Amino acid sequence: MEETQSLLNGIKKPSDVKKIPENMLPVLADEIRKTLIKTVSETGGHLASNLGVVELTIALHKVFNSPHDKIVWDVGHQVYVHKLLTGRYDKINTLRQYGGLSGFSNPDESTHDIFFSGHSSTSVSAAYGLAQANKIKGNKNYSIAVIGDGAFTGGMVYEALNNAGRERSRLIVILNDNDMSISKNVGSLAKHLAVIKARPSYFRMKAKTEQIINKIPFIGEKLSNSIFRLKTGIKRLFYKSSTMFEDLGFRYMGPIDGHNIEVLTDALEGAKSANYPILLHIKTVKGKGYDFAELEPSVFHGISKFDIDTGEFLSSGTNFSNEFGSLMCNFAGNDKRVCAVTAAMSLGTGLENFENLFSTRFFDVGIAEEHAVTFCSGLAKGGMLPVFAVYSAFLQRGYDQLVHDAALQRLKIVLAIDRAGFVTGDGETHHGILDVPFLNTIPGITIYSPTLYSEMRNAFVKALYHDPAVVAVRMFKGAEPSLPDDFYPTFEDFDVYGDPDAKISLVTYGRLFAEAAIALNILKEKNIKIKVIKLNKIKPILEDAVSEALSSSHIFFYEESELSGGTGEIFNMMLTNAKYKGNYIIKAVEDKFVTHATTEILLSEHGFNSESMVDYISEVICNE
Amino acid sequence: MEETQSLLNGIKKPSDVKKIPENMLPVLADEIRKTLIKTVSETGGHLASNLGVVELTIALHKVFNSPHDKIVWDVGHQVYVHKLLTGRYDKINTLRQYGGLSGFSNPDESTHDIFFSGHSSTSVSAAYGLAQANKIKGNKNYSIAVIGDGAFTGGMVYEALNNAGRERSRLIVILNDNDMSISKNVGSLAKHLAVIKARPSYFRMKAKTEQIINKIPFIGEKLSNSIFRLKTGIKRLFYKSSTMFEDLGFRYMGPIDGHNIEVLTDALEGAKSANYPILLHIKTVKGKGYDFAELEPSVFHGISKFDIDTGEFLSSGTNFSNEFGSLMCNFAGNDKRVCAVTAAMSLGTGLENFENLFSTRFFDVGIAEEHAVTFCSGLAKGGMLPVFAVYSAFLQRGYDQLVHDAALQRLKIVLAIDRAGFVTGDGETHHGILDVPFLNTIPGITIYSPTLYSEMRNAFVKALYHDPAVVAVRMFKGAEPSLPDDFYPTFEDFDVYGDPDAKISLVTYGRLFAEAAIALNILKEKNIKIKVIKLNKIKPILEDAVSEALSSSHIFFYEESELSGGTGEIFNMMLTNAKYKGNYIIKAVEDKFVTHATTEILLSEHGFNSESMVDYISEVICNE
Repeated sequence: MEETQSLLNGIKKPSDVKKIPENMLPVLADEIRKTLIKTVSETGGHLASNLGVVELTIALHKVFNSPHDKIVWDVGHQVYVHKLLTGRYDKINTLRQYGGLSGFSNPDESTHDIFFSGHSSTSVSAAYGLAQANKIKGNKNYSIAVIGDGAFTGGMVYEALNNAGRERSRLIVILNDNDMSISKNVGSLAKHLAVIKARPSYFRMKAKTEQIINKIPFIGEKLSNSIFRLKTGIKRLFYKSSTMFEDLGFRYMGPIDGHNIEVLTDALEGAKSANYPILLHIKTVKGKGYDFAELEPSVFHGISKFDIDTGEFLSSGTNFSNEFGSLMCNFAGNDKRVCAVTAAMSLGTGLENFENLFSTRFFDVGIAEEHAVTFCSGLAKGGMLPVFAVYSAFLQRGYDQLVHDAALQRLKIVLAIDRAGFVTGDGETHHGILDVPFLNTIPGITIYSPTLYSEMRNAFVKALYHDPAVVAVRMFKGAEPSLPDDFYPTFEDFDVYGDPDAKISLVTYGRLFAEAAIALNILKEKNIKIKVIKLNKIKPILEDAVSEALSSSHIFFYEESELSGGTGEIFNMMLTNAKYKGNYIIKAVEDKFVTHATTEILLSEHGFNSESMVDYISEVICNE
Repeated sequence: MEETQSLLNGIKKPSDVKKIPENMLPVLADEIRKTLIKTVSETGGHLASNLGVVELTIALHKVFNSPHDKIVWDVGHQVYVHKLLTGRYDKINTLRQYGGLSGFSNPDESTHDIFFSGHSSTSVSAAYGLAQANKIKGNKNYSIAVIGDGAFTGGMVYEALNNAGRERSRLIVILNDNDMSISKNVGSLAKHLAVIKARPSYFRMKAKTEQIINKIPFIGEKLSNSIFRLKTGIKRLFYKSSTMFEDLGFRYMGPIDGHNIEVLTDALEGAKSANYPILLHIKTVKGKGYDFAELEPSVFHGISKFDIDTGEFLSSGTNFSNEFGSLMCNFAGNDKRVCAVTAAMSLGTGLENFENLFSTRFFDVGIAEEHAVTFCSGLAKGGMLPVFAVYSAFLQRGYDQLVHDAALQRLKIVLAIDRAGFVTGDGETHHGILDVPFLNTIPGITIYSPTLYSEMRNAFVKALYHDPAVVAVRMFKGAEPSLPDDFYPTFEDFDVYGDPDAKISLVTYGRLFAEAAIALNILKEKNIKIKVIKLNKIKPILEDAVSEALSSSHIFFYEESELSGGTGEIFNMMLTNAKYKGNYIIKAVEDKFVTHATTEILLSEHGFNSESMVDYISEVICNE
């Protein structure tokens, strides 16, 4: 394989891409694909989306001058190729590893990464801001947003297009259309794109149009350089009706083949000459060049390590997402009101079976968390029992709707929060450590944070059939942990584990209970007796749970969440109200973003694993 | 005036509207307009938007059967006419008064109000949820979203249209196009609508089209009943190119005259027969029927009491919004990097002068808070100093972007938060009592909450030129309060007022400091000595401010904010870390939504005014 990477190895900066002869670029593309497949098979990560943008990324760096020109990658999971071409080939094997390359765009890593990214549909807004700043300063450089058709289902994109359209600026939006968001794309936009793609395009009609073009003064040679400047009458020769993007004030180019570097280069050169907002529509194949990924791009979206030859994943087993999915099928089978709503995450949240079995009550609304929450509100008002399955980090986009359209309405809406707590590999933008703080601010909401599958199932029963109004159930990524044999879940709002008369309390919830239980037993061997108060319902917290801690000399509150606004602060206020005068210490994430690493490393780094708990509690107790 | 209200007086429920003969409906419209103008001149509220939907509301209740059919009013400030026609005429003089009618849609008030409302662009999502619930249950009733062109600039609408388009359902979206959001409408959508309106419409071509229609089998009589079902070829006779709404899978009807009840009724009957998602585009005049409001609809959007004959407002004077606007002009004059961004609130946030003087650095992005934040991020990355002026209650829609596109990027973005704290009249959806809790959750953010104009100016200087990354400056609605002569602002991060050796501390910030200062002086007369620790910077809180309180036997923390996640809980945790063992009590809004009333009433109700402070502190101290 070494020999085949010789071109890639020579690229230390984007200008090196420009030096490669045109006929060798497909070879470069091939080297990149091999590197991607090998890397992701070893590190896990996003494969299919990167395989789809190999040619586009090469063409971008051929035509534009990064970082003078700013390439803003939407979501940023498709940025591996860009990393390979901007001096990070030698570090690509550290991808997503602690201390290694981020799996997303990261300005700390390279000046070629303009923004930290990870959430969808932000690139046009950010690139338009850059374009306006350049305009004000009189700079001539370009701002380019690269965004998938999936991300185009997010409303922010329309807000940005509406704002940016019909005004002179050096803004280029590249719509990377692979018929997919993370799951198979849904909604009317996808159908609109399909209609556009069915039309005779600029580039498929190249031969024919060139004849016409050559008759028009000042236009010729480079078709793509001029095509969008043709007058309306001529334009109508090439495609019959206008696109939505033109209605929003963009000049539309496309659709073109996103795997043909020459065509891409032509189109990008054309877009450059516009001085007007351009939407360039390219067609790509997600997973291009790796059969297993082409066949099942959803499966190869965000993945763990896999075997290159068979396409099989190296880890498997049960997890909260699948257990939740099965539970939802049970609920729906017994109760015709139960609906499942997801924002383009049916696979990640375990809802594939539900989708097949209860298709009329399954709603994939696109990457549209805001709409999802308010849509649930409509379903609930109409007598349904909607469950919105969503990753913690993405739910925050629906904060206003949770307040205004869910909690204020006092309707039963259940939030099934996946990826609550640290997640392996993805970094700053994907950890689920803000949902507890932001949900805590919302009046009248109930939050469960179970440790075991059985507790999770119990929480959903309460959520659907007992608690009032909006209820959240938080699930961490992966499987339930094993717990000591002498722990018996009571399925009450809190449990007490260990010696009830111990004068040291450790209060925690969710995944950290497993660490706390181990810590308790190690401390016991060291003759330090503690009890663990395991909160199952973390909002509202039962007064009894607080009472259980009141006689303690020391209370340690551990939470896998941001400190500010977290449950530890609320617990403290309850202790204060109860006139507790002992020692109270919170261990949480303190006012910072958390880098990418394995969950194990992050738990250790933050002092959240059992060893750290033992060390810290021993130290505090023994130093008194 | 009594005589002219006789029709309105007879309407106790929507079915009464149906009984009024067609030729008397314009008389009813006239009665409604008179009632609106009189009411709002006395109560304040939203006038122009309600004057614009008089005929539409009459037609809706004539054609549909509320509450069996669900009319969902976007934002809900245009719901006064609907209130008059659904049995609330006799209470209309209590509008926006404590205990009286809400100024927005409110299900607690009437079964005809489907959702609590107040924030923009949610209605299509909610109505689509209702439509799906009906479909699942096999119900035949209609879900109707009524939404202005301004609200159409919010991305949620597109998320909803994308999701709802091209699927059978009894969903009708009425686009109430008055060329306005709150300020003059902006962006490409507005221009697209203008283009549509310039086309020959269905209804203006009624006479001509009827001739054609009558030649087609099974079609005739009621034009509007069938027009949208005509085949494409025929459809093209009536309008030449398609609309964006059709690209998103809706059947488009319009544009029609929104002040002609007969035309409206025809169109709504037509929409009813579709069994397919319909977008009905109606043209209205905001402020219709009241000259002053027609001339200056922005000024007559959300207003205080006014004189009917002159159109002059009865209160005036300086306020934080205007002072902020002047300050921004100073900044921009001295520093070419300073930009102002607003989400359709240039008037409300005091930026009119800035808009005129520095038009290239002024950006009204539409009702698009999400885009606004990320756009600021782009501006900042491009070297600008963006200030986003926004109401507290609306900033929450940008929470994800504040986390992901502002704080994580470590870029200098300044948030000028208007309406922070209680606001008079608007109620649950408009109080600025969540921004402190949700901003507190965001890593690395700085928050100022000044009491005086001078402190506000000082805070912005620090925000723009001294503090790192994202900084918020909170301003309450109205004028700065008068403070005791012996208080001298230091412009430091906190001030101490009163006896520094007092053993009772009252900690507060923002508007409540004025109440606390009065309370201090009354308590002094009662021989209860307290000191007030006035936080100017509320995040991060200086350790010194906490130290100042440590020697107190009692610390009372007052904040005009939700308790959970608020500054009082953080202050408590800092006291706990400092081993404070005295008494600590927070007075804040506890886990509930707050109704509409004057700020004075709300401060009193929550125990936040000086009298309540005196009573409560005296009681606690004297009972010990």
